[in-house]
Amino acid sequence: METAELWKKYQEKMFVISSYDLVISTTYFDADTIAPVKGADYRNDRLAYLYGEVFSLQTDPELLELLEKLNSAENLDDEKKRIVKWHLEDFNKMRYIPKELYVEYSQVQLEANDVWKKAKSENNYKLFEPYLFRLIELTKKTLEYRHTDLKGYNILLDDFEPGMNIEKYDRFFGLIKERLIPLIKRISKAEKIDTAFVYDYYPVEQQRKFMKEILDYMHYDFDAGVLAETEHPFSNAISKYDSRITTHYYENNLMSSVFSVVHEAGHATYNNQVRDDLAETFVFSNISSGMHESQSRLMENYLARTSAFWDNLFPKVKELFPEQLKDVDQKKFVRAANASECSLIRTDADELTYPLHILIRYEIEKGIFDGSIDLNDLENIWNEKYEEYLGIRPSCSSEGILQDVHWAGGMFGYFPTYALGSGYAAQFMHAMRKDLDVDQLMHDNKFTVIKDWLREHIHQYGGLYLPEEQIRIATGEEFNPEYYVDYLTEKYTSLYFPE
Amino acid sequence: METAELWKKYQEKMFVISSYDLVISTTYFDADTIAPVKGADYRNDRLAYLYGEVFSLQTDPELLELLEKLNSAENLDDEKKRIVKWHLEDFNKMRYIPKELYVEYSQVQLEANDVWKKAKSENNYKLFEPYLFRLIELTKKTLEYRHTDLKGYNILLDDFEPGMNIEKYDRFFGLIKERLIPLIKRISKAEKIDTAFVYDYYPVEQQRKFMKEILDYMHYDFDAGVLAETEHPFSNAISKYDSRITTHYYENNLMSSVFSVVHEAGHATYNNQVRDDLAETFVFSNISSGMHESQSRLMENYLARTSAFWDNLFPKVKELFPEQLKDVDQKKFVRAANASECSLIRTDADELTYPLHILIRYEIEKGIFDGSIDLNDLENIWNEKYEEYLGIRPSCSSEGILQDVHWAGGMFGYFPTYALGSGYAAQFMHAMRKDLDVDQLMHDNKFTVIKDWLREHIHQYGGLYLPEEQIRIATGEEFNPEYYVDYLTEKYTSLYFPE
Repeated sequence: METAELWKKYQEKMFVISSYDLVISTTYFDADTIAPVKGADYRNDRLAYLYGEVFSLQTDPELLELLEKLNSAENLDDEKKRIVKWHLEDFNKMRYIPKELYVEYSQVQLEANDVWKKAKSENNYKLFEPYLFRLIELTKKTLEYRHTDLKGYNILLDDFEPGMNIEKYDRFFGLIKERLIPLIKRISKAEKIDTAFVYDYYPVEQQRKFMKEILDYMHYDFDAGVLAETEHPFSNAISKYDSRITTHYYENNLMSSVFSVVHEAGHATYNNQVRDDLAETFVFSNISSGMHESQSRLMENYLARTSAFWDNLFPKVKELFPEQLKDVDQKKFVRAANASECSLIRTDADELTYPLHILIRYEIEKGIFDGSIDLNDLENIWNEKYEEYLGIRPSCSSEGILQDVHWAGGMFGYFPTYALGSGYAAQFMHAMRKDLDVDQLMHDNKFTVIKDWLREHIHQYGGLYLPEEQIRIATGEEFNPEYYVDYLTEKYTSLYFPE
Repeated sequence: METAELWKKYQEKMFVISSYDLVISTTYFDADTIAPVKGADYRNDRLAYLYGEVFSLQTDPELLELLEKLNSAENLDDEKKRIVKWHLEDFNKMRYIPKELYVEYSQVQLEANDVWKKAKSENNYKLFEPYLFRLIELTKKTLEYRHTDLKGYNILLDDFEPGMNIEKYDRFFGLIKERLIPLIKRISKAEKIDTAFVYDYYPVEQQRKFMKEILDYMHYDFDAGVLAETEHPFSNAISKYDSRITTHYYENNLMSSVFSVVHEAGHATYNNQVRDDLAETFVFSNISSGMHESQSRLMENYLARTSAFWDNLFPKVKELFPEQLKDVDQKKFVRAANASECSLIRTDADELTYPLHILIRYEIEKGIFDGSIDLNDLENIWNEKYEEYLGIRPSCSSEGILQDVHWAGGMFGYFPTYALGSGYAAQFMHAMRKDLDVDQLMHDNKFTVIKDWLREHIHQYGGLYLPEEQIRIATGEEFNPEYYVDYLTEKYTSLYFPE
């Protein structure tokens, strides 16, 4: 067969897989946003079946044959070669896993997700514990079917962030501990920033209007996305042309929805800005977690927590909440958005203490997979670590071990990419600021120029490049976490200890 | 194979089909409620592919073999025999249609639906016309592959309402013309009922709250359903446990959302009340259109337009709209809800003139399929018929030929079941009133007793029985359309010409 014909056949197979992905992804979004509770069992049984069908398509020997032929074809262009290479690697990850195991795992994930919601709302870890154990067991079992030189937790780490492993993460988190913990301790004794107004009463209906303002300012394309409401904010790229975000409104917390919306819009922007000719290929959805997270963190922290971001938006928030903000000027508002305080909930954590929340999860996951942790002691270990690193102890499961959805989805190895993504973002931001006067652009209401830079240097490629390659392309340098700790150190030192 | 084992294998195949139905149905609901416009092409291409997959499953020779074996098995209980019989009949309808034709048809339907939305909002019939022609052509082509004694339009009529044909519908509509047109003419010269308040300003947010009140009164189960918002109200039973409804809010029309919500809740109640052991069988979703419509019409017209229905709800609507309804008492409110006036939009039509809207569509469809209508003249014919039967002429396409979604979905032969369903409902209501003091029950806030009656006599069976059988089971008589015209004649005579 001609290479062009092989490619065409390959694309046809991808089209079939993407058809399943589309409806499953939409059903998943529906389930998390509006579906009624009584339909859950009926839906989960059928979704698990379809996950199995997708698994069969993804591990189809004909697909493998096509990929192998394309991989050795001589006249395939460089980008297509990469796509084939990444896809082959992914194929080999799935290849030896028994379908029954995969379907069982999917079924437990779907159930665990529902049980987790219930357990969290009832503040009852014991309800969720057996599902967590089962997911850990099934994850370990799945790892036995992976033919790779990597072992245990390293396989999971590499799945979510190609090239990463325990050694590298240990180094990364070592730097964070060394440089940030002393700063956090110093700040805990410094004068507090006044954030009382943040916890005033902000009616949900008004918050909704404000999110629309923020997203319009960021040129989020509502014709290619949706803002919906869920318990746990997330983004969901059904396609490049339909990249959705969700948030959760708290009546007594203005900042929570603001920064979750900007964060998820960062993810959506990545998906919306992938090049058209890559949008229906393997590299559209196969972007590393760290790289994706770098784009949400960049928007959330490196842009939306600056004063310039608020030059156009602060008058709007004042208009929507005149009473609540009557004694608040832009400076006070931005300072409050950056206040650092050790807290229990990761998603509400400030930029500085955030990586410690991740460190805790990373250490626990490491312990789960190297067997050094007694699973029956998990909640206690969680609480101990919060006390050790953040000086506070959860008083209940819902603000402790039950706070995150990830483990309920069997996503072990994912958390560390959150801190890593923040690290990438610091370096991207450093490069962007060399090219653009970012603050001036935001002041001038030209957020699109910033998005254009991100598209040109990062987004357009989707997952065409490995994280290390992508960082080199966008910044001209190897990944250097010093940018991250330097940024945090400078920012928080000048915020809390102005000269 | 043992019969029990055959049945198990058959159920397994049904489970697979229902898995596809679930995700497709959810995606369809999502598309109509919140999906962004730019994702439409990507989605439609993939949905059309999956429709093809479902078609393959539905026409799978192994399924046929199972059905045939079960059909001739001796030790199958009566209900299962029926299920198998209806399924076999359905199988034979699909059986000889080429898959390519089916997929092409699906693709055109999906596109036509999007184009129709655009054409309607731009009031441009010419935009939609080529899609309509294509759907007519493809429908005719599909009919060539139907092995049946029926011909042309009769095949379509029988598909939506087993047992119905042109001859029977002509008789049914003949009675309507004979008995109702003179009454409508008399009313057009009578003193008008004051409905001005209906078109006051009713904020959408308040209407939403009111719909919640109405659905609570009707004991609609929000744990097994959703109320969403769409351009065109519809109901969508994803499963017995997830039976959804939608409505459209108009700021200047209170009654529109009220009666569409009650109507769709009628459909949803049917699905929610199907017996558990039938809920995952062929007869769950395969209920005749006329029978389903009888249940929505029964709620909408025969219950919600009575005064007793409002005994509990009128105080609530007064509370939500105190200004708008300050000069309106319950009597005036209910009279306005029943006012009859010839109008252009079917979905807003009153109970009395409604069947004429259907008659017009029926006559046009008949002409399309017997070739007596020049397709290029369709819009003109539509307008002429409105002038003939209702004495008014659409001034634009969106309030004429573009008003309904059905033809954009290729649903020819469906419309007549709307009038027929109203006819069935009259007879059901007559039977129910023999058993129950319906008005007293509504007055006493005991709507569940009415729902129980419907479950016991109709809903529990799903589509287990043919319409004619179901009518006999619930009423002890053959279908008799005199109940319908008598009801309308008595009701509207006493409303407009009280003695």
